[in-house]
Amino acid sequence: MSARAHPVDDDGEISPVDTSSPRQENTPYVHKVEVPPKQNLFNEFMYTFKETFFHDDPLRHFKDQSKSKKLMLGIQSVFPVIEWGRKYNLKMFRGDLIAGLTIASLCIPQDIGYAKLASLDPKYGLYSSFVPPLVYACMGSSKDIAIGPVAVVSLLLGTLLRAEIDPNTNPNEYLRLAFTSTFFAGVTQAALGFFRLGFLIDFLSHAAVVGFMGGAAITIALQQLKGFLGINKFTKKTDIIAVLSSVISSAHHGWNWQTILISASFLIFLLISKFIGKKNKKLFWIPAIAPLVSVIISTFFVYITRADKKGVQIVKHLDKGLNPSSLRLIYFSGDYLLKGFRIGVVSGMVALTEAVAIGRTFAAMKDYQIDGNKEMVALGAMNVIGSMTSCYVSTGSFSRSAVNFMAGCQTAVSNIIMSIVVLLTLLFLTPLFKYTPNAILAAIIINAVIPLVDVKATILIFKIDKLDFVACMGAFFGVIFVSVEIGLLIAVGISFAKILLQVTRPRTAILGKIPGTSVYRNINQYPEATRIPGVLTIRVDSAIYFSNSNYVRERIQRWLTDEEEMVKAASLPRIQFLIIEMSPVTDVDTSGIHALEDLYKSLQKRDIQLVLANPGPPVINKLHVSHFADLIGHDKIFLTVAEAVDSCSPKLSDEV
Amino acid sequence: MSARAHPVDDDGEISPVDTSSPRQENTPYVHKVEVPPKQNLFNEFMYTFKETFFHDDPLRHFKDQSKSKKLMLGIQSVFPVIEWGRKYNLKMFRGDLIAGLTIASLCIPQDIGYAKLASLDPKYGLYSSFVPPLVYACMGSSKDIAIGPVAVVSLLLGTLLRAEIDPNTNPNEYLRLAFTSTFFAGVTQAALGFFRLGFLIDFLSHAAVVGFMGGAAITIALQQLKGFLGINKFTKKTDIIAVLSSVISSAHHGWNWQTILISASFLIFLLISKFIGKKNKKLFWIPAIAPLVSVIISTFFVYITRADKKGVQIVKHLDKGLNPSSLRLIYFSGDYLLKGFRIGVVSGMVALTEAVAIGRTFAAMKDYQIDGNKEMVALGAMNVIGSMTSCYVSTGSFSRSAVNFMAGCQTAVSNIIMSIVVLLTLLFLTPLFKYTPNAILAAIIINAVIPLVDVKATILIFKIDKLDFVACMGAFFGVIFVSVEIGLLIAVGISFAKILLQVTRPRTAILGKIPGTSVYRNINQYPEATRIPGVLTIRVDSAIYFSNSNYVRERIQRWLTDEEEMVKAASLPRIQFLIIEMSPVTDVDTSGIHALEDLYKSLQKRDIQLVLANPGPPVINKLHVSHFADLIGHDKIFLTVAEAVDSCSPKLSDEV
Repeated sequence: MSARAHPVDDDGEISPVDTSSPRQENTPYVHKVEVPPKQNLFNEFMYTFKETFFHDDPLRHFKDQSKSKKLMLGIQSVFPVIEWGRKYNLKMFRGDLIAGLTIASLCIPQDIGYAKLASLDPKYGLYSSFVPPLVYACMGSSKDIAIGPVAVVSLLLGTLLRAEIDPNTNPNEYLRLAFTSTFFAGVTQAALGFFRLGFLIDFLSHAAVVGFMGGAAITIALQQLKGFLGINKFTKKTDIIAVLSSVISSAHHGWNWQTILISASFLIFLLISKFIGKKNKKLFWIPAIAPLVSVIISTFFVYITRADKKGVQIVKHLDKGLNPSSLRLIYFSGDYLLKGFRIGVVSGMVALTEAVAIGRTFAAMKDYQIDGNKEMVALGAMNVIGSMTSCYVSTGSFSRSAVNFMAGCQTAVSNIIMSIVVLLTLLFLTPLFKYTPNAILAAIIINAVIPLVDVKATILIFKIDKLDFVACMGAFFGVIFVSVEIGLLIAVGISFAKILLQVTRPRTAILGKIPGTSVYRNINQYPEATRIPGVLTIRVDSAIYFSNSNYVRERIQRWLTDEEEMVKAASLPRIQFLIIEMSPVTDVDTSGIHALEDLYKSLQKRDIQLVLANPGPPVINKLHVSHFADLIGHDKIFLTVAEAVDSCSPKLSDEV
Repeated sequence: MSARAHPVDDDGEISPVDTSSPRQENTPYVHKVEVPPKQNLFNEFMYTFKETFFHDDPLRHFKDQSKSKKLMLGIQSVFPVIEWGRKYNLKMFRGDLIAGLTIASLCIPQDIGYAKLASLDPKYGLYSSFVPPLVYACMGSSKDIAIGPVAVVSLLLGTLLRAEIDPNTNPNEYLRLAFTSTFFAGVTQAALGFFRLGFLIDFLSHAAVVGFMGGAAITIALQQLKGFLGINKFTKKTDIIAVLSSVISSAHHGWNWQTILISASFLIFLLISKFIGKKNKKLFWIPAIAPLVSVIISTFFVYITRADKKGVQIVKHLDKGLNPSSLRLIYFSGDYLLKGFRIGVVSGMVALTEAVAIGRTFAAMKDYQIDGNKEMVALGAMNVIGSMTSCYVSTGSFSRSAVNFMAGCQTAVSNIIMSIVVLLTLLFLTPLFKYTPNAILAAIIINAVIPLVDVKATILIFKIDKLDFVACMGAFFGVIFVSVEIGLLIAVGISFAKILLQVTRPRTAILGKIPGTSVYRNINQYPEATRIPGVLTIRVDSAIYFSNSNYVRERIQRWLTDEEEMVKAASLPRIQFLIIEMSPVTDVDTSGIHALEDLYKSLQKRDIQLVLANPGPPVINKLHVSHFADLIGHDKIFLTVAEAVDSCSPKLSDEV
């Protein structure tokens, strides 16, 4: 196709070909930028408020309903179970039953291991897979999430708690602080949801989470070396240096070959089963039940060989019975209250990030909406109740949710099934875990956390956004070389730094006209784009706010200075017009207006005309109320760069 | 003009008129969005780094210069005086002399008053107008700024210091802490400049500063009521409630009519002179010298009438002699070190904001560039040296700088003149201030701070940006009703909140085609714009980052849901295409890509095609590396909305 036939034209300009004639006659065809109608202040405010806190319009169902219906809907929105419960049928149940049993078989051994990560007695892991899933099933809106203790949160909670109390010297305080933290974790989550502040967790960027998870996974895996190698005295630290050195130092005497034999062989078994599951999606259940199978086999094996006598560490004792109440154990006063609060906020936020991410992922897959804030209230309530029934912070588990999804779960009933299985285990089967070797739990956990090291995602992040990659790596190395909190801190820090960078240093570009068209594009991107002599066209790629107004002004002035030097050197006609393409300038505030005024003043001194192209509705509006439009002259504001250029130098358009 | 003759077209679309024919023939004239050439990682990084910290390219002069020249330039850039000193001539000196004398006459009475604001002995005010101006004259790059103590910083410093130490019970510690704070204020300023972090002060938005200044001015004026009314026992608090109540409570006995007579009459005199100066710019010197004149008159008057015997409070005693060294008074250890540091950082930042604002304003007026960061180093050095020579935090004064400018100052020499006058005053004239009534100082300060209450600016802010206005009012009321720090805190808090809001809740809009053209515009702004049946076009008005990716996704889905309900109600053809206009989407990161993927998945479920229009260079680049372009199909990405719409439904274009 020839440029003549179909000249491109994305600047509101009519193609030069068919308009050169009217232009020579200087027909004033230029289109004014319309000023949008005045907004009522209250409406404006309400709109902003609504968009900020209620953008998902959670109350839409309540509109024009009877009182009783409203009440009913209100109860429903808190307990979605009432809604989907009515539609529940046997077919759904079949799916949920299978899924529930599968995740139960997966969660029981994991729970025992994760509890150890948090330096808690294994039973608390099982407790946390009993009550919270039930609560969530009634209040949660995700159909696929599998609730329970998860590796990363357990590790984080453990690290934070151990920093305050030594679990070995005074286990009771430790336990109480754990419940206190869980309580406040729940309160934090519920509060965030209730006050519609859910968006705060978005500040932990995806990249940061990937790095953090990866680092945590490796830290967790390293922690498992204790059980994996059967080392007796192991460092309390979690950073890679300390762990490896303590592993190596204990190499010549501390390791136990029988333990290694068990853990290594079963880890291989687990990895193979995982591989099979990956290859053939139908066989997803093989990796799902593999952990339980290996627990059973290894336990039996240890029982008959009495390998525990040969230094193979075993679970030894696992209390029978249901969650006791732990309400009176929570610190509601004293300085542990504050510590518990701090720990609770941190671990609560992290738990939230994981759960919400899972919820979103599967909601997108099956295309149902999830109200993030309502979800947070559900998760919060679940942890608050949990903290009163001897559970520690539980949330949605990536691995188990995926299995749940693949096993064809239909509703949160799969979580109920799981918690019933856990209930039965607690009532009758706990004694059977006596001879379960810790080695197998180590193997299971290592196998479970491997997928958290998401190399593919990291590579993608590197490809897409370098700064994201820095955040990712910062979190990653922060976790493995220092500690979980530091890693988290780095992640959040860099994420915020990125926001500040984004708002303080917007892109600017010099535009040129692409030959044969009247499109103006970044000349660095399109080297063939031609500059119009005597005219400098600059595009500003962001809203001009107080945080970047001075930068934008100075940057434009520097573009101008460079250009003038260049022009002088090449003895071209001097710059007479500075056109600012404002299409991407979505908004401008007082500081922005002042920056423009300063720019205008200094341009006047240099006898250069300031011309604006295509300011958006809010911008043109503010240019008018601030009388900046009057200052530079209304005839200096154009709908498009092309028109602006023509107005600057009517003849140029033909030269090009 | 008819739309036919000149169809508008800012969407890269050829005007419908002259292209309807090829369109019917379905000629594939669509223009692909070009993927910019790959960037070398290192260059990319260096570019970002440079733009962040060296966007003003401070080393440009050093390029391809000899070593010795580089050294020379280096020294020059630290001491600009070397550069402009050489070009200095008598004509310039005349201007500077007049300006210098004028601001001196203005600053001497102000200094004495401001020192009292900081609960310091009057002499320290004069000290601070002697050394710092000299240092600045050598290192600073602004030609118009007038250096010395200023009202707001004095008040802030005083408030912060009094919170730590009571100046009456132990004045020595108080003084030492003042110098310590000054030292760290200087260090902070210099550090910010040296590490190119000057942009940090931009986070205190213009609006916040206006509000803060206004509040501070009123607080200061209220503080002056003590001197103005001749009240003996006055509250230590600064909030309006406490001050007014203490004023009223002392009304029936505490006031002193002679004092009120003096202060009131001279305040009127000052206001009138200011009015004259405003009316006739040539008479700027009248308001400039009025304060000194009134000091002289009132002092003489008190001296002859011995009004001090009748309860008119006077300065009493003002030490003769130059700044003593205060190096050994600075706390370099102990817990006062930390307190001094904290106070220093805060007051240093505020002082910086004022000075930099002044520098920028006048630089824009006379069109010379100021390197903000270099300026900060100069101000920092000035305060560090000041802290060692019995000066407290000094910075650029709005009022005196304006006078300096109007008096025709040419260079920083006017500051030198001023400091010489102050020097002479310190050496010989201090005894004359013995009978100067505090009332006159109060009148002078009240008169000086009135302009800081910038009603016009506030109204403008209200008109331009409501959120800015909230920040402004927040700072204002925070200062007058609680305290200076709280006001400052509110100001910074709201400013940051605004940034977060900006990056978490970008605007989105539904676009319609403006009849007779192929421009697509926000249908709320242009009600006449027509929607294309079966197609929903949404524009996202910001970069899609982790901080807003989920909001953007959910918001788009909600637009879609609303639209579908509307469509169902009106029994129109169902939505088949969702076009996202991405022109304002300046960038996208990993989270953004994932949000788009999720959106795409859920759209697939609803059997709706996702189409992108005009993604910018960085965006299209990332769409490719992330293979999202492959996912939705390259033929679904168009240069313009119009082309996208055509591709969706070739026939529609004729209907419209």
